[in-house]
Amino acid sequence: MTTQDIMRNAKNATKSLMLCDETKKNEILESMAQSLLAHKEDILNANQIDLEKAVVSDVMKDRLRLNDQRLNDMAQGILDVIKLEDPTGKVLNERTLENGLVVQKASVPLGVIAIIYESRPNVTSDAATLCIKSGNTCILRIGKEAWNSANAIVQALQEGIEKCGVNPNIVQLIQDTTHQSANELMEGVGYIDLLIPRGGKNLISRCVEHAKVPCIQTGTGICHIYVDDEVDQDMAVKIIENAKCSRPSVCNAEEVLLVHSKVANEFLPKLKKQLDTYPVELRLDKRAQKIIKGTKATEEDFDTEFLDYILAVKIVDSVEEAIEHISKHSTKHSESILTTNKEHAKLFTQSIDSAAVYVNCSTRFTDGGQFGLGCEIGISTQKLHARGPMGLEELTTYKYIIQGNGQIR
Amino acid sequence: MTTQDIMRNAKNATKSLMLCDETKKNEILESMAQSLLAHKEDILNANQIDLEKAVVSDVMKDRLRLNDQRLNDMAQGILDVIKLEDPTGKVLNERTLENGLVVQKASVPLGVIAIIYESRPNVTSDAATLCIKSGNTCILRIGKEAWNSANAIVQALQEGIEKCGVNPNIVQLIQDTTHQSANELMEGVGYIDLLIPRGGKNLISRCVEHAKVPCIQTGTGICHIYVDDEVDQDMAVKIIENAKCSRPSVCNAEEVLLVHSKVANEFLPKLKKQLDTYPVELRLDKRAQKIIKGTKATEEDFDTEFLDYILAVKIVDSVEEAIEHISKHSTKHSESILTTNKEHAKLFTQSIDSAAVYVNCSTRFTDGGQFGLGCEIGISTQKLHARGPMGLEELTTYKYIIQGNGQIR
Repeated sequence: MTTQDIMRNAKNATKSLMLCDETKKNEILESMAQSLLAHKEDILNANQIDLEKAVVSDVMKDRLRLNDQRLNDMAQGILDVIKLEDPTGKVLNERTLENGLVVQKASVPLGVIAIIYESRPNVTSDAATLCIKSGNTCILRIGKEAWNSANAIVQALQEGIEKCGVNPNIVQLIQDTTHQSANELMEGVGYIDLLIPRGGKNLISRCVEHAKVPCIQTGTGICHIYVDDEVDQDMAVKIIENAKCSRPSVCNAEEVLLVHSKVANEFLPKLKKQLDTYPVELRLDKRAQKIIKGTKATEEDFDTEFLDYILAVKIVDSVEEAIEHISKHSTKHSESILTTNKEHAKLFTQSIDSAAVYVNCSTRFTDGGQFGLGCEIGISTQKLHARGPMGLEELTTYKYIIQGNGQIR
Repeated sequence: MTTQDIMRNAKNATKSLMLCDETKKNEILESMAQSLLAHKEDILNANQIDLEKAVVSDVMKDRLRLNDQRLNDMAQGILDVIKLEDPTGKVLNERTLENGLVVQKASVPLGVIAIIYESRPNVTSDAATLCIKSGNTCILRIGKEAWNSANAIVQALQEGIEKCGVNPNIVQLIQDTTHQSANELMEGVGYIDLLIPRGGKNLISRCVEHAKVPCIQTGTGICHIYVDDEVDQDMAVKIIENAKCSRPSVCNAEEVLLVHSKVANEFLPKLKKQLDTYPVELRLDKRAQKIIKGTKATEEDFDTEFLDYILAVKIVDSVEEAIEHISKHSTKHSESILTTNKEHAKLFTQSIDSAAVYVNCSTRFTDGGQFGLGCEIGISTQKLHARGPMGLEELTTYKYIIQGNGQIR
């Protein structure tokens, strides 16, 4: 099937999903989970084909690999979402106008959501689950390394959907894994209500350049932590250790450290001692180089999402200078100030224009689960529609429903 | 000044506005209103230049013309917005996590909003007012016919802003009125947080094609009214008369009428009699042509926003067929069902994917003022971020502010 066929099928399938109530949607999800478990063998076989073909690093192979436990987790993930509240059909507000019109603002699904993602087969069922719970038809487009796995998963999910008497095209996988299909999705005006690119910088910037359908940019996180002159230094060491080293490959990990010059002499050696227990490379600006040892930072280092054990370090002379630096270099994901000065904390949270602004804690908390959304389909770094972790609510829009009895204007 | 200069200035100016509280913003607005009145003569003189140069229809000239009363209304419009609630700084929700983190979701300004609009000078102060009240810096780009008028208005507004000690670049007018400047705004990644194109179909589709910054499509309304087989026909005649004839040039006017075949024979002659008191041209499908006189409708007529005394009429055999037709041809603005059958009304409001879905009233109510938003900067016909009339709240986003005391993950 061509990508165009799939988009057309998706649009046609939205109708059946739009009319499903919460009970019906949960029934579909439960059937999907059962079908996933029933097809374990098919899925693991398909995964084996992907693994054998893959010419990728061990880390990538680990992401790609499925096993009994991971499939159980995927099924459990579906069952967990069943328990979450349905985000649609809510009356967000209701006004009765003087002329008697009752104006309801009600939450509704977006329609068709397309997700472009990399070679993580488990995202297939996660994304499909969140879309269906929120009443949205979904089109999935995975990288070629994981296509066979994703295809087996989608076939299992579709069988589960069909058993409930619902159009299985509410979940579809794009068959073409070349750039062409991603481009067709980006240009799918009239078919795609929302495109979520999950992936590297290149994919995101291709979307910004070429997409004609509404997109939500996700993920890229050049996260900053600023250590103020008034600070609990021991706490600061622990927070930075956590933000940099607990999982360096994720988007909410710290990439840049700003330190106030008044505390830098005392603080940086303490920090270095702790970070040296990991294979962390420090990329230091001129002033920091005079205090501790490390690589000389280039300008580019302050605009790079390392996703690795690398930390760029810069010394600043005030909270204002820290804010100025962050405003220029941040990707608007997550930033944190470590300070005991309430005025500085307030200025920082007011002035920093990022999805999540922290005081005295690690940036690693920017996550749907941590924030209590129950799930997450991505982290938005843009300001329109949704910001930060996107859960079920962020996959809805609203419409106004107005009941009258002949009112004219 | 070049468009690039203006975008840079705007970005720099956001900081000063971000730190203004409600009192300060209202002070600025009051000063803007006073300055507008103090510069009446300058503005009317500039308007005279525009009027003399304009080679446009009388309707357009009327839109372009300013006078004492219209300037008073503009100033009053500013004072009215002062009374509205500040949409920023609201805690949308707050959670205390088990680890003690306090996660606040707070409403904040978007940043820099650019508005491209046609030759209505009064939009200049309306748009600037809504942006400032919501904490946003604005860049205005008006059509060349009204540039002198808008320039005089912006100068007056800037003088008012400066008197309050605030950077006057929070309101700027683009000087270049060629396509070039609109293109530069569409490509102003890193400078423009939201672009609102207000204008005809061509401008909107240029934005869809070329914009790299987030846009909200506004306005285009091919609004449908469906007359069901179970209906109060006298009420239906009055509603359609209102929806088509009260102001045919606006986006919430009816363009297409769908009538159930069971009532068409009786209803269409009644309707025609009433519409004949206006210069309405009926464009009829084959079946309607057998019942009343009118022009033969082309396929295109069902995809046209006439903005005139023209109504396309089609006969359908069920509410489902009406829904099907609307799904194919609607611009997702406003649609209405006229029926006494509650099941049909429910199916219609559930299935129609438009910003405003009406039961038994005119589509003309889709309007910020009518919906109780207090004001309006446009009507969104897209589904992301904002839908339908956009007031102050729709000019904000949110950020998460997280207060901790050393939490790590």
